[in-house]
This record gives sequence, structure tokens and C-alpha cells, in this order.
Amino acid sequence: MFEAVKSPYLVPFDGSFRMQKAANQPPNKAPKKKQREQRLSALIDEMSELQNALYAQDKYAILLVFQAMDAAGKDGTIRAVMSGVNPAGCQVFSFKAPSAEELDHDFLWRTAKRLPERGRIGIFNRSYYEEVLVVRVHPGYLQGQRLPYLPEDIWSQRFESIRDHEKHLARNGTIILKFFLNVSRKEQKERFLARIDTPEKNWKFAAGDVRERQHWDDYMNAYQDALNETSRPWAPWYAVPADSKSFMRLSVCQIIVDTLKSLKLAYPKLSAEQLDEMATLGKSLRSEQ
Amino acid sequence: MFEAVKSPYLVPFDGSFRMQKAANQPPNKAPKKKQREQRLSALIDEMSELQNALYAQDKYAILLVFQAMDAAGKDGTIRAVMSGVNPAGCQVFSFKAPSAEELDHDFLWRTAKRLPERGRIGIFNRSYYEEVLVVRVHPGYLQGQRLPYLPEDIWSQRFESIRDHEKHLARNGTIILKFFLNVSRKEQKERFLARIDTPEKNWKFAAGDVRERQHWDDYMNAYQDALNETSRPWAPWYAVPADSKSFMRLSVCQIIVDTLKSLKLAYPKLSAEQLDEMATLGKSLRSEQ
Repeated sequence: MFEAVKSPYLVPFDGSFRMQKAANQPPNKAPKKKQREQRLSALIDEMSELQNALYAQDKYAILLVFQAMDAAGKDGTIRAVMSGVNPAGCQVFSFKAPSAEELDHDFLWRTAKRLPERGRIGIFNRSYYEEVLVVRVHPGYLQGQRLPYLPEDIWSQRFESIRDHEKHLARNGTIILKFFLNVSRKEQKERFLARIDTPEKNWKFAAGDVRERQHWDDYMNAYQDALNETSRPWAPWYAVPADSKSFMRLSVCQIIVDTLKSLKLAYPKLSAEQLDEMATLGKSLRSEQ
Repeated sequence: MFEAVKSPYLVPFDGSFRMQKAANQPPNKAPKKKQREQRLSALIDEMSELQNALYAQDKYAILLVFQAMDAAGKDGTIRAVMSGVNPAGCQVFSFKAPSAEELDHDFLWRTAKRLPERGRIGIFNRSYYEEVLVVRVHPGYLQGQRLPYLPEDIWSQRFESIRDHEKHLARNGTIILKFFLNVSRKEQKERFLARIDTPEKNWKFAAGDVRERQHWDDYMNAYQDALNETSRPWAPWYAVPADSKSFMRLSVCQIIVDTLKSLKLAYPKLSAEQLDEMATLGKSLRSEQ
């Protein structure tokens, strides 16, 4: 089975991740912004090549999960990192509040329907992890889920469901990479203010996002738990510093490219029989009037 | 309702399109390859901006349908024109031979499920038009469709269904652009031979594609009919010369950009109430400890 590639931001598999020690900022020795952008552009070209091989080989599916506090930069990172790859091999789904139909199913149903096919990169902008994040911070939402049982250990049951689901997917050829874009509370404030103060950004402003800030510590606890409970070698979490957008984008892209490279993707080869048939058809094509 | 933008390749709405007179080659006065590539790159940037506005405004959906003979360059055109736009706002679906489940539904069912949402660009690599193209050339396929009725005028019934479906979509905000990538029989032969003679391209080779060449004239008749029967101001066909890939890609991109511009897309504005609320929240954000 697939094994997570190394990164300073890989969340360990032994439950020892601590939010308070996780970086929001790039390390001091990080390359400067200009270099980051050049490096990102080179990495995107590399990813685009790797994606062609992924598509041609048609064995692995790649699932990229993005979770973060509002304004951490999920949309921008998806745009910056994935624009430039062939959209025929890339599917992005954003999950908002569940619909009535979705609530009438188990909590993995709506995302399971949108899992990537072999040969494709699927991107979840938010995911089933919302069920152990926003729902955990606002347990009142459980009332709307019409569950016949509400066990006391509902969160550990949900973590178990998620681990089992991801292990099943990994065993059957889906490579799962999960990114927590780790923005600081202070930087989030600056980004909200920018949306308020810049008329062209006003349309992105949502009052509810600002109100959620009062639950910041609850969210951090919920994230810490979720990452510890579900970071596994076959479905790793990466907690990427998000206060610098250029560094965040570069880090995410680097992890994706390193992972794709580790798969040793190869273009399919024709069988001897197919090669024979091809030669025969080539001859008849050449002799066409 | 939306109206088709002008182009030398727009298929007229009065049934007067003739395949024999349709160009496979760029006109003599066309820009050279190098200029085409520069122009394409500038157009893609423009499309990417327009797509952001489309997404923010969230009113129109764009449906791009690509149909062509094998090796005309559908995949390459989709990759070249659409890489560079935000994949979060772009969905590509390829339709191959229908599955058993799909055959158990009417012929518009499988594509209807994959129509683009408002704010998105949806791309159909092949589509329901296969039902009046490959199925018309091989009417034996109708036997597998388990239809209770097989009327004599089945093709005109299908054209009517398609026209009605597209008119309904157009009335409800989907902008439909249909591209027939018009490759010549001679150029198709060269491209098949390139797949045979270049080992790295071998994996794309499919014997069935070559065998379909013997039905070339039947296909051209079926395309001519389909284009004449279904090119309408609100759902136009463009028959784009496809013997030069760079010219084809540029022409397709130009038509998409001209169409997006004609929609006069605008970013949404907040209401006075929302602006008030935003100002209040801004104040409380600034005064946070």
C-alpha cells in the first residue's frame, strides 16, 4: 500500500501532533517570495507531466482533501496549484452545508459519490471531516441529522468510520493526501479586514465567517483531535503553515509532486498481440488510395 | 436569451451548411503558428478572468460540447484551451459507449446528470450527439437500446428531442456552444500513422478507430445533418478547421472568449443591509483584543 512521503509538515501517526507547536509561518531559511513563485511554476509543470502518466496508466486515483479555517486560502491554493493541469483529469468538489437529501444518508454518502475515478485527481474543498469539525464545535447540528442513535462516543465512532473508509479506499488504489492549511487567528483577522476594506473583495465577505471566530479555540481542539485520530501512513495529514500564501502553495504542490513521483507511474505498454495488429493496420493505412 | 457570437465557422441556422464546402485548413491570411500560440496564451488569461466573474456572479452555466472524428484533437484542444483556468470552475466529462445502467434510461439521461452548475464551465468530450452520429452510422446499435418503439423517423425525433432539451437549458441560463472539429480524412490518416510510428504514442492507438475510417462518408453525412438540424441562435454549432492544431485551438478559444464577453458578466454587489452589517463586523474585528 502507498506510504506517505516525508515532509516537515507531515502529521505523525502516533497521536503526538500539538496545534500549539504547529507553525503558521514559513521557517526562517525558506526561499523568498520571488523564488517560491518560480519554484511553484516549475513544480506545476512537473505535476502536469505526472498527471498525464497517471491518466494514461489508469490505476491510481488521487484524492486531495483541503480543510481549514475560513480565509486560510483553500480556494486560492486549489486555483494556484491546480490551474495548469489538464482539467480533463482533475475534478474539484466544494462541500457546503449538507442538503436535505444528503442528511437523509450516512455522513460519508455525499462525498463517496464524488470520489475520483482511477487516473484522475479529485479535490475536496472541505469534506466528511466537517462532521468532526464544525459539527463537533456546534453539536446542535447533530439534531438536524435525524440519527436514531446519539452515542456518547459519537466522535470516536466517527473517527473510526473515517479511518476504515480511508483504509478501504487506499487498499483499492486511491492515494489520499489531506491538507490542513494552518492559518493563525491574527492573520485570519487581517484577511477578513482586507475583504471588508477592498470593494472588489466585498462579495466574498460572509458575516457568518467572522462570527465563527469566537469558537477559535474549540476549532483548534477539534482539528488537533481529528488530525491525530486520522493521520495514517496510507492517508496522511499535512499541517501546512498558511500565513504566507506563496509558501503554503509551494509546500502543498511539493507534497503532491513528491507523492506522484513515489508512485513510479508508467505509460501503459501494448501487448505483443496488440503491436502485431497495429503493424497490420499501419500497413493497410499506408496503402489506402 | 443568449445569441450566438459571429464567427466564420458558425453553422447557419437555416440548414444550409454543406460539409463539402467546410474548411479543414486555416485561411491563407491566418497568423503564423508562433503568433497563434502567443494569441492563444493571451486569450486563455482573458478567459480565466472571465471565468472568475462567471463563478462569482453564479447565474450562467456554460456547456461546451466537442464532437469530431477520432484523432481530430478533442482531448488536446480541451487540454490546451482549458488548462490555465481554475479547475474549481470547470468540469470535463468524457462519454464513451453507454453502460448497461445508462442504456436503461432515455438517451439524454446520462449527460443531463452531468450538466454544469451555474457559475461553472462544463465540457462534454462527446455527448448525446453520439446518438445521431455513431448510432446513425451503425443503426444496429439501436437493438442494444431496448427501445419499445423504433419509428421510421427516429432520427428526426431525436433531433427534435435535442433541440427541445437545448432550448430548455438555454432558457434557464445555460450557454451552449458546440464545436465540430473538422479534420480531413487525409490528416486523420497522418495522425493515426504518427501514433503507430511513435512508440510513446502507441498507447493511444485503438484498432477500432482505424476501422471506423471505412464509414467516413456516412459520418460526414450524419454530421452535416446533425449540425443543420440543431444549430440554433441559442445553441450554435461551430465547424472549426482541425487540420492545424494551433489554428483549431485558437479558433475555439476565441469563440469561447467572445461569448463570455457578450454576457457582460459582473461581480455581485452587496445590498445596503449587507454593507451595513459588514461595516459593523469590521468595527468589532478591529477592536478585538
